Amino acid sequence: MAEMEILYSGSSKVVYKGEGDDIFIRFKDYITAFYGIKGARIENKAKMNCCISSMVLGYLNDNGVATHFLEQMSDTEQRCRIVKHIPIEVIVRNVIAGSMARRLGLEDGIIPENTIFDLCLRDNELGDPLINDHHAVALGLVTYEELKHIYEVSAKVNALLVDLYARAGIKLVDFKIEFGRAADNTLVLADELTPDTCRLWDIATEERMDKDRFRRDLVVCAKRMRRWHNASLTNLTSNSYA
Amino acid sequence: MAEMEILYSGSSKVVYKGEGDDIFIRFKDYITAFYGIKGARIENKAKMNCCISSMVLGYLNDNGVATHFLEQMSDTEQRCRIVKHIPIEVIVRNVIAGSMARRLGLEDGIIPENTIFDLCLRDNELGDPLINDHHAVALGLVTYEELKHIYEVSAKVNALLVDLYARAGIKLVDFKIEFGRAADNTLVLADELTPDTCRLWDIATEERMDKDRFRRDLVVCAKRMRRWHNASLTNLTSNSYA
Repeated sequence: MAEMEILYSGSSKVVYKGEGDDIFIRFKDYITAFYGIKGARIENKAKMNCCISSMVLGYLNDNGVATHFLEQMSDTEQRCRIVKHIPIEVIVRNVIAGSMARRLGLEDGIIPENTIFDLCLRDNELGDPLINDHHAVALGLVTYEELKHIYEVSAKVNALLVDLYARAGIKLVDFKIEFGRAADNTLVLADELTPDTCRLWDIATEERMDKDRFRRDLVVCAKRMRRWHNASLTNLTSNSYA
Repeated sequence: MAEMEILYSGSSKVVYKGEGDDIFIRFKDYITAFYGIKGARIENKAKMNCCISSMVLGYLNDNGVATHFLEQMSDTEQRCRIVKHIPIEVIVRNVIAGSMARRLGLEDGIIPENTIFDLCLRDNELGDPLINDHHAVALGLVTYEELKHIYEVSAKVNALLVDLYARAGIKLVDFKIEFGRAADNTLVLADELTPDTCRLWDIATEERMDKDRFRRDLVVCAKRMRRWHNASLTNLTSNSYA
């Protein structure tokens, strides 16, 4: 893929232009946090995240959620549909943690009675601020109709992933997804779904199995991560991805 | 009113317990900004704000919006219904300004195609953070049903006040209102509506006619303020308040 046109190059992924409406995403063995202030190389992260994201997006495709994912091409590469990204992060929370806990002066771990949906504007300079539906519409990023669809899809993704991760002994605390407009102008989920973008806690011990290990310098429990990963894959053997 | 029980004493108002479900609100000649960091005495502010707020709340009552306001008792005093305050500020914006402009990196004065409704948690220590419907429900402050009602009432208040201020040559840029639960558990608007809590710009010149004059140390144009105030009162002579 050395001669392909690069559409995007970030710390953890490179996106290449493919044929027609295809793109290729190559995952990298690198992780960043706090807007790139903290960064490190993590061996096999590309492989693990590519496999997890391919598995999860394939599972969503199979369950009626339109995503950009087409197929896993290799250990570290995916073929996806090109989309025009909407610069909004949708965060779905089953447990209060992270930025929401800080914002409201709460401890991590409180379980609300309702599912929480946040919108954040993707803008590094502004610090990805929390916005609401009216701001998103005023900025011309989406219509109220599109937001209704985005919330419906996000709730469906949450229900599917809570179930998926529960089967692997993992609690889905929260996750971030983004959407884009495909060539036919339909909205599709266009993002990775990995431990970089989800909070995943061991159901029994609440041990962190996600990027918070890196953010907070927790010792990486590789054995447990691998066990979870294998368990997840085993649970999904009825589906095959590359 | 010297011997009445004080329920609340703030920088710009004192609230006394009255008989039954009544309270008395006495306005003060004092203004603060930036969480009390900036403060000053302003002569006749109590009288002006009490008159404006009484006029506006009476106008809303007469137009089918349930508010806590019962009657103006004197130049600086109102009789109102007691309520249990919900610690949420609803901000309604017709023009982007203030905290929304800062949050999104925009200039003051942009007119969005949609009306913008913000919710902020009333918590000085947290800096009255922006929240969304899901946060408000998760915190146990309101139900989704109540929020629907609050937004409907806020939109109606906006339509009524845009019209009222336009008749006085003033553009209603934005305003903040709060709600409370009355003794019969109905939601009522329970707040002042004054130049402390609204952004009011001269339609012709965009001159600021509100608390931003104090926040930004703009020279107070007392003559124009008085003309506006008189014009507003004249426009409403069909109603009589004390």
